[in-house]
Amino acid sequence: MTQVLVLNGPNLNLLGIRQPEVYGATTLADIDELCRQTGAELGAEVTCFQTNHEGVLIDRIHAARTEYAGIVLNAGAYTHTSVALMDAIKSVDLPVVELHLSNIHAREPFRHKSWIAPVAIGQICGFGAAGYALALRALLGHIEAQA
Amino acid sequence: MTQVLVLNGPNLNLLGIRQPEVYGATTLADIDELCRQTGAELGAEVTCFQTNHEGVLIDRIHAARTEYAGIVLNAGAYTHTSVALMDAIKSVDLPVVELHLSNIHAREPFRHKSWIAPVAIGQICGFGAAGYALALRALLGHIEAQA
Amino acid sequence: MTQVLVLNGPNLNLLGIRQPEVYGATTLADIDELCRQTGAELGAEVTCFQTNHEGVLIDRIHAARTEYAGIVLNAGAYTHTSVALMDAIKSVDLPVVELHLSNIHAREPFRHKSWIAPVAIGQICGFGAAGYALALRALLGHIEAQA
Amino acid sequence: MTQVLVLNGPNLNLLGIRQPEVYGATTLADIDELCRQTGAELGAEVTCFQTNHEGVLIDRIHAARTEYAGIVLNAGAYTHTSVALMDAIKSVDLPVVELHLSNIHAREPFRHKSWIAPVAIGQICGFGAAGYALALRALLGHIEAQA
Amino acid sequence: MTQVLVLNGPNLNLLGIRQPEVYGATTLADIDELCRQTGAELGAEVTCFQTNHEGVLIDRIHAARTEYAGIVLNAGAYTHTSVALMDAIKSVDLPVVELHLSNIHAREPFRHKSWIAPVAIGQICGFGAAGYALALRALLGHIEAQA
Amino acid sequence: MTQVLVLNGPNLNLLGIRQPEVYGATTLADIDELCRQTGAELGAEVTCFQTNHEGVLIDRIHAARTEYAGIVLNAGAYTHTSVALMDAIKSVDLPVVELHLSNIHAREPFRHKSWIAPVAIGQICGFGAAGYALALRALLGHIEAQA
Amino acid sequence: MTQVLVLNGPNLNLLGIRQPEVYGATTLADIDELCRQTGAELGAEVTCFQTNHEGVLIDRIHAARTEYAGIVLNAGAYTHTSVALMDAIKSVDLPVVELHLSNIHAREPFRHKSWIAPVAIGQICGFGAAGYALALRALLGHIEAQA
Amino acid sequence: MTQVLVLNGPNLNLLGIRQPEVYGATTLADIDELCRQTGAELGAEVTCFQTNHEGVLIDRIHAARTEYAGIVLNAGAYTHTSVALMDAIKSVDLPVVELHLSNIHAREPFRHKSWIAPVAIGQICGFGAAGYALALRALLGHIEAQA
Amino acid sequence: MTQVLVLNGPNLNLLGIRQPEVYGATTLADIDELCRQTGAELGAEVTCFQTNHEGVLIDRIHAARTEYAGIVLNAGAYTHTSVALMDAIKSVDLPVVELHLSNIHAREPFRHKSWIAPVAIGQICGFGAAGYALALRALLGHIEAQA
Amino acid sequence: MTQVLVLNGPNLNLLGIRQPEVYGATTLADIDELCRQTGAELGAEVTCFQTNHEGVLIDRIHAARTEYAGIVLNAGAYTHTSVALMDAIKSVDLPVVELHLSNIHAREPFRHKSWIAPVAIGQICGFGAAGYALALRALLGHIEAQA
Amino acid sequence: MTQVLVLNGPNLNLLGIRQPEVYGATTLADIDELCRQTGAELGAEVTCFQTNHEGVLIDRIHAARTEYAGIVLNAGAYTHTSVALMDAIKSVDLPVVELHLSNIHAREPFRHKSWIAPVAIGQICGFGAAGYALALRALLGHIEAQA
Amino acid sequence: MTQVLVLNGPNLNLLGIRQPEVYGATTLADIDELCRQTGAELGAEVTCFQTNHEGVLIDRIHAARTEYAGIVLNAGAYTHTSVALMDAIKSVDLPVVELHLSNIHAREPFRHKSWIAPVAIGQICGFGAAGYALALRALLGHIEAQA
Repeated sequence: MTQVLVLNGPNLNLLGIRQPEVYGATTLADIDELCRQTGAELGAEVTCFQTNHEGVLIDRIHAARTEYAGIVLNAGAYTHTSVALMDAIKSVDLPVVELHLSNIHAREPFRHKSWIAPVAIGQICGFGAAGYALALRALLGHIEAQA
Repeated sequence: MTQVLVLNGPNLNLLGIRQPEVYGATTLADIDELCRQTGAELGAEVTCFQTNHEGVLIDRIHAARTEYAGIVLNAGAYTHTSVALMDAIKSVDLPVVELHLSNIHAREPFRHKSWIAPVAIGQICGFGAAGYALALRALLGHIEAQA
Repeated sequence: MTQVLVLNGPNLNLLGIRQPEVYGATTLADIDELCRQTGAELGAEVTCFQTNHEGVLIDRIHAARTEYAGIVLNAGAYTHTSVALMDAIKSVDLPVVELHLSNIHAREPFRHKSWIAPVAIGQICGFGAAGYALALRALLGHIEAQA
Repeated sequence: MTQVLVLNGPNLNLLGIRQPEVYGATTLADIDELCRQTGAELGAEVTCFQTNHEGVLIDRIHAARTEYAGIVLNAGAYTHTSVALMDAIKSVDLPVVELHLSNIHAREPFRHKSWIAPVAIGQICGFGAAGYALALRALLGHIEAQA
Repeated sequence: MTQVLVLNGPNLNLLGIRQPEVYGATTLADIDELCRQTGAELGAEVTCFQTNHEGVLIDRIHAARTEYAGIVLNAGAYTHTSVALMDAIKSVDLPVVELHLSNIHAREPFRHKSWIAPVAIGQICGFGAAGYALALRALLGHIEAQA
Repeated sequence: MTQVLVLNGPNLNLLGIRQPEVYGATTLADIDELCRQTGAELGAEVTCFQTNHEGVLIDRIHAARTEYAGIVLNAGAYTHTSVALMDAIKSVDLPVVELHLSNIHAREPFRHKSWIAPVAIGQICGFGAAGYALALRALLGHIEAQA
Repeated sequence: MTQVLVLNGPNLNLLGIRQPEVYGATTLADIDELCRQTGAELGAEVTCFQTNHEGVLIDRIHAARTEYAGIVLNAGAYTHTSVALMDAIKSVDLPVVELHLSNIHAREPFRHKSWIAPVAIGQICGFGAAGYALALRALLGHIEAQA
Repeated sequence: MTQVLVLNGPNLNLLGIRQPEVYGATTLADIDELCRQTGAELGAEVTCFQTNHEGVLIDRIHAARTEYAGIVLNAGAYTHTSVALMDAIKSVDLPVVELHLSNIHAREPFRHKSWIAPVAIGQICGFGAAGYALALRALLGHIEAQA
Repeated sequence: MTQVLVLNGPNLNLLGIRQPEVYGATTLADIDELCRQTGAELGAEVTCFQTNHEGVLIDRIHAARTEYAGIVLNAGAYTHTSVALMDAIKSVDLPVVELHLSNIHAREPFRHKSWIAPVAIGQICGFGAAGYALALRALLGHIEAQA
Repeated sequence: MTQVLVLNGPNLNLLGIRQPEVYGATTLADIDELCRQTGAELGAEVTCFQTNHEGVLIDRIHAARTEYAGIVLNAGAYTHTSVALMDAIKSVDLPVVELHLSNIHAREPFRHKSWIAPVAIGQICGFGAAGYALALRALLGHIEAQA
Repeated sequence: MTQVLVLNGPNLNLLGIRQPEVYGATTLADIDELCRQTGAELGAEVTCFQTNHEGVLIDRIHAARTEYAGIVLNAGAYTHTSVALMDAIKSVDLPVVELHLSNIHAREPFRHKSWIAPVAIGQICGFGAAGYALALRALLGHIEAQA
Repeated sequence: MTQVLVLNGPNLNLLGIRQPEVYGATTLADIDELCRQTGAELGAEVTCFQTNHEGVLIDRIHAARTEYAGIVLNAGAYTHTSVALMDAIKSVDLPVVELHLSNIHAREPFRHKSWIAPVAIGQICGFGAAGYALALRALLGHIEAQA
């Protein structure tokens, strides 16, 4: 069974509390459940993990090298500032799908820049929690196509 | 039955011929077929249309106002240059999902800028032809959620 | 009797429908009527034309060389992107008054830039439909002063 | 009878002397007369005032709050540099029409920037002295429409 | 008894009238009173002065050299444009506390730039009228620490 | 009794050792003591916390949601680089006063930019350790005014 | 016999009328004739085509794929704005020689930028109508060298 | 006898007091005396005037039109910010020599920009008070050469 | 015996695995060994430490103040983004040699910027693992020269 | 017989050795021969000269004033950096054709800028050695047209 | 007797020939004579030297260290591009007066930048040949004041 | 025995005289001696050469192709301005180590840019004369590793 990691970055633990007008009322636990169900439907086992620490994200991506077939990554605000995260993804041989809850290209200019994009296979943004299901579908389709 | 428009812009008619190392060998006819099938699976009727003319894209978006419930739009290079296209989308009351075959954020800097993004519900890029199926799924999910 | 052309660019056909909070409820037909009446009051015959196509705007400006004494031009979004339109105006010997419904200098920065301005005699913006009457008055005053 | 203020900024007192190839031979006194006549035709009383001092322009705009129904403002070079003038207009509840003798968007790039524009209802430029009559017409039309 | 000057720049005379959603309903007279009371509590005599003229602000700062132990300066919009004001402060040997009613760093980008800052001991902004009391406290603490 | 958090970021633990010509000889322990005393005078209980880790700052701000009425935040160098910190503040409903020991606007240009400012009620900088007392006073005044 | 296409973009139909001080009095018909003669001398058949429509240029380049051995392209103002044209050239496997009547690098800065250049074999500009003969010579030399 | 005006702008009244390490200990009175003596040596009558007000500088330049043969202008900080001053010089037909005590091109970048330069015959900077004598010599040489 | 710290930042733990075409097949353990041997040859004891966490790097630099005579620092991607790291180095009184495996000035522009450089004695880059030996030699030479 | 100079700048002496994938295997001697032959065909005598020294290029252009009817100039890298070369061309009354072996507009951005272009009659680039023949043809055509 | 060097850079040898509308008809020989005469009047011996080679200018400045009391330098176009020239001046202990025939601040923007200015005592520009006499006067006055 | 060239650019001949606070008192002769000794220790013969002429540097690099196994290059100020030097290095097949006495990344921003870096194997800066020994060691290690 394909093992896939869903990795969430800073402030996503407050989902459903934080700025509901931008992100909706769904909590991170709801999303984790949605991910696991979508994975199950598509024949994959999904592990979910969230942290507010850039260094922990890097450690987790490194560790994923030998444990997972791919990553769905919502790096939150580190998307826009972390060269180290980009380098971490480059240093492991895993397909990464970049995900954002909101349409980052319709928000402040500094959110248009993504350090993840140049090392990701693709980007999905703007579809709220539903985006996670799309991202898993995209990732698993990619993994299957490469196999 | 929900009516949805898939609108393709300049140079996409040459798909499968043009730069296969970037876009793959799938032709536009293949994509149209994929779109119709995906629509059928999700309970929607999909119409596909391609043009190399910016003005025709605008005319088509205007006409879509009363004919479709939403648009999947791959505006090709006009994505990066056409303010008129952005205004056209703003001037109709339809949800638009922005789609790109390649990961535009991993290519030349001038392809990172999208005039479509600020008026689209979300963006999907980098997944090749499979992205159309994801985009239709995203659009129909959005339409359903708004209903 | 002086012949004058009022030329409207992309998305102006949806006037009265599109973003009424910015542009008001007046339709393009209302504006055409206002232009013809104002022309009549000032002793001029006014022809109105709208298109969403940049190329058609250029063709029309070329054709105007031998048919009209001047042009009131609302180029819509092409104002901000079309060098070809600027060159078209330079290539004919007609006075052009640049017009915008909204105050473009009070909106997004990309709308402050006008490729029309360097080849127009003047600019009027921010007065809604009433601006067309002012523009015709300005154009006809200019034509008379040059005569 | 509607009271309207026409406010002229730095160097406009030398009109008719200064760079006639750009601004024409009309003097400021001619313009004042034109303004009063145009006002009379349109049922308004027009007061004209000129100063080279930024602070005096601000004082005058403040004082206008309780004396006038609107302002036609040709702020001259302060248009391009005075944030204080923009704040002054914001701090009073009066409609302001921005006016320039020359087409500022066809001149040096630093003259394209207007600090007045974001707080004015609209802008008229490039029509020489005749622009004052257009501006008064635009202002009085606006006042009437708001009434 | 320590003599301190509170200097207010352009448009602050309209306080309480101008944009109450940004600055609140307190008038400049209220602030003058608050300043004098705060001064009294802290053992200092406070003089308040407002002008809309950049030149008068410079004259006043020059004159303050021999009359005051320090200045609380709210230069309004001149903060963002006046190199001459910066030079005036450099040319006298007085500690200056920069004050703004609103949080200028949370507003338009052009308000983030301060020509006062490089020659002030510190900056306080965002606390409305209460900021004047904080600024006087900061200034008098600084004067005492230097004594 | 009002509970308030004083949060200090990277390198502030070395205060009194690090660049005394910029920050003075006061240690962080001195500042903590000053904060607690000032709090006591103003009827509030102050908790002080310092960390060099961006992720820990975010965790602490999240936790503060249910424990404190407001935060005085000296985010040190993260002020200039951390979008994640800005998002963390936005995601909790607490008033934040931004504080800096030195006048950041009088130092290198990259220190003028603050990601904290757009989500803080105000900023105080340049007054050394005394700034903490001013910031607590500002914060408690704000909390009282909102109550 | 080698088939070659000479493709002219917006406003070139007015050649000989438009700005003769920049482009000279030669008409487009003269140039077409010069192209056909030069082709004949060099053993090639030359087809000439002009349009003001960006979309038509793209359609024509697509169609050229199977009809011509190479293109001499004077894209006029679309040179500076059309990413779609660049993509169109990339999508066909034909050598393109970029041509301009005037020396675009000696004119306004926005005319220095060419979207055609990165996908053309070379550029010739500044030699007026004679440039077409040079361009055909360059193109046919290139085709011969590749053969 | 040739009449010449030496015009000094903001903060120059504090000369000899302000930043002596940059400008030296000479007072403005010393400079006025030097100017009159230099004028006398070169057969010209020199009038000196100083003001901190931008508007007064403009008024004075206007008045100089009929009273003086030329101006030596040290506009102080207004050099770097005043478009109105540039326009004032353009609006009178007098040769202006731009003068600065310090070498503005060796100081902060914002002091390198001069709005005076494009309308002055030349610039002299960096020679302290002695620069006034050089400037008068340059101006009178110019006036003589034009005569 | 001189104590020296070799500090490695994010992603360097994957050395030998990550992008061998850029960094070679040497592992971090190999480098640690090389450092210890080079230190021994030059009469110094070398301690090696790696972390992916910016905060841990700062903590370690603080702790080094009293334990080491100098640091060789390869901060990885934090080199380009971490102002906090620059401040940490400034806050301790230790010589730091900046090291990079690859020639950062020959790579992407964002890697040319170093926040470490302004507070380091010098920089060595492009020599792969051999650079560590050069850096230790440079550091120990510097320490000896200062002694 | 018309005398024409072909002037080659830095590094062109290594042609055929240096980066053959960009410039081809032709040597400078081959090009000199091609130039002389092309000149002979077109009734002109061609002199060829190469140097790596900017100053020698300037000296040679000065000397050419009285010796040649025009210059074909391949200034190599000095094209992008030498204002002095531009001034040298302006200071002599000779037509100059700018030539580059490679398509400089398809290479790194710093090679798009040409200081030669504003003072040359035209530019030819991207056609390798064959470009010299085109350039001579263009230059001699220009000389003939001017005669 | 004071020994002074007047150093002229590229293209100044063509003075009187080159662009007389900008620089006048005076030749370099005339200027050399003027310099020697002015020197004689002021009690100094003046040596004049011109070269088109940047390296020779540097060599000459180095040699001047032990031979001259100061330099009047008109570096021509190297003013705007030569960091090496700036470093050469810094490396010798001689006062340098920067001179330009034309008002460089009234010409193209790239001529506003001077690499000489930060290491010169002052700048004189815009007064044609007469500027050399002013510059010698300024230099000798400076030398005398330092003695 | 390996032959290596140490090439020094502009102003380095004045070493020990020029700005000793930046570069120290060591002369170029001392450095040449250090280079020869270091070479001898590492089994290589070192030739040293200095020039202030960009063209001579290029000539020397060309000549080095057949004479040396590698170059240590301190190009002085030409590092920041010479594209021709970059092209010269690209045109020969020799490893180049870039060297600077001072830490160029800790100095003025224009010294951070290196045209040498993209074509060098690595860069060493900030270690004064000792840097030459490090650079030779780096170069010889590289040559050995390639052998």
